[in-house]
Amino acid sequence: QARGSPRLVTGLPETVGAHVRRTAEVQPFLRHLGVQVVAVEAGAVDTVIQNSDALGREGGAFHGGTIATLVDTTSGLAALTTADERAEALTVEFKINFLARAEGAQLCCRSQVVRASRTLAVMKADVFSGAAHVATAIVTFLMWKTD
Amino acid sequence: QARGSPRLVTGLPETVGAHVRRTAEVQPFLRHLGVQVVAVEAGAVDTVIQNSDALGREGGAFHGGTIATLVDTTSGLAALTTADERAEALTVEFKINFLARAEGAQLCCRSQVVRASRTLAVMKADVFSGAAHVATAIVTFLMWKTD
Amino acid sequence: QARGSPRLVTGLPETVGAHVRRTAEVQPFLRHLGVQVVAVEAGAVDTVIQNSDALGREGGAFHGGTIATLVDTTSGLAALTTADERAEALTVEFKINFLARAEGAQLCCRSQVVRASRTLAVMKADVFSGAAHVATAIVTFLMWKTD
Amino acid sequence: QARGSPRLVTGLPETVGAHVRRTAEVQPFLRHLGVQVVAVEAGAVDTVIQNSDALGREGGAFHGGTIATLVDTTSGLAALTTADERAEALTVEFKINFLARAEGAQLCCRSQVVRASRTLAVMKADVFSGAAHVATAIVTFLMWKTD
Repeated sequence: QARGSPRLVTGLPETVGAHVRRTAEVQPFLRHLGVQVVAVEAGAVDTVIQNSDALGREGGAFHGGTIATLVDTTSGLAALTTADERAEALTVEFKINFLARAEGAQLCCRSQVVRASRTLAVMKADVFSGAAHVATAIVTFLMWKTD
Repeated sequence: QARGSPRLVTGLPETVGAHVRRTAEVQPFLRHLGVQVVAVEAGAVDTVIQNSDALGREGGAFHGGTIATLVDTTSGLAALTTADERAEALTVEFKINFLARAEGAQLCCRSQVVRASRTLAVMKADVFSGAAHVATAIVTFLMWKTD
Repeated sequence: QARGSPRLVTGLPETVGAHVRRTAEVQPFLRHLGVQVVAVEAGAVDTVIQNSDALGREGGAFHGGTIATLVDTTSGLAALTTADERAEALTVEFKINFLARAEGAQLCCRSQVVRASRTLAVMKADVFSGAAHVATAIVTFLMWKTD
Repeated sequence: QARGSPRLVTGLPETVGAHVRRTAEVQPFLRHLGVQVVAVEAGAVDTVIQNSDALGREGGAFHGGTIATLVDTTSGLAALTTADERAEALTVEFKINFLARAEGAQLCCRSQVVRASRTLAVMKADVFSGAAHVATAIVTFLMWKTD
């Protein structure tokens, strides 16, 4: 496994894992924010994001918008692990609660499937700064297939 | 009124209007995204954001994370118009539905107060790309005062 | 128009209006709560519910659960007005903010379509007790057809 | 421990446990729906509700409104376990996703604290019908004290 690739856990077809990584790589906004995928498994994805002056709000904590972006993105990738390599996940809606100020050098996000069907996927996501739980969310996706 | 300043509608104390503009200006993430405040009135704020390669997803539409950031930010500013110039608005949570692909050169967001008390403010926000309604949201803020 | 039937506004096919009324009538929980449909138009439905000891919480206000039920139900009926008479609307999720104590003899709920496609319908709903705005909500439905 | 009382787990002051049970008992709508508290511990509460013709929708499954009521109520009781016996928990908002048809003779709900402060409590709640996960939710409460 190449350095910098996300860790792949047994249980996920390699074609689907490759599809998830490719999806993350082609989004310019994610590159722009510096979101990194650190683990991909069947039903779950872990990401991290590093802080920077641009991402913060005054005082240096991560902005709520960055946290929401991380949640949406990580959950979309995790939703893809529930389908095959032709799937796309379109965000229908999400709801996020901010639990604590998001300070520190990086945030980690874990998103896990709650329920997935051919049509819809419901994910839960949690964001941590070290041991501090900074946000929790539920995200709903419409699943569809590219030809 | 200087070019580029948000339009101020009668009914909002000047000290509060100044507080809203200052709050928008000091957030590095908003400058980074290029969010502009175009109108500030008692109970409502309008903003716009221009598209750029960095903000888009593949294909050029605005990323859901950018739209969520716009909603959160605009709503926080609108919440400040319900209080005095020492107020701060902390996002407790928000829920956003994505209604259509957010294409085009810019997005407009309007956030309006639904209910505000000394402790909590509930805002509704809608995002448009031209005539297309691209997102709708409800945002809850905890209101507090700086000394 | 028979007394007690919901008012029908021009623009909605009669078959769809009849489908909406039938849907409301066959739900035992709605009969049990005493939800009444007072207006059905293309894209919107109005309902009312009368207070009773059983529906209240201590002190006599309506329980949040009753308000949520009213929102879900009214929105489901309004979603049906966006489709044809074979449509069914399955609640995917909703989010509700409680804005004020729901006192008084009855609550009125108005739900309106925000965006409807063949697959999904997004509705907004507001609940009033007299002039008091007691709740606001967004509700997402999965639309499907019976054979 | 009397038959029918909720199980109390070590770690919760007896005065708080008594306060939670009393709160559940005095709500007429909960008695009306037949919600039973089956476990109370520090940070979490479990409840069950039995099906009946009145609670169902056509076909016999539980109505979404009943499930939402169960989530709101159970979460409010669980929020009380994070404070002292003078606390009250007022529902600010909740968001619920329906995951599967809620069939069967009874539903179980578990609500757990995600984050609690003196001002706000954020809870997550999950509802099961046997092994089927039928709903997941996040609920926000405003905490305050009676004199």
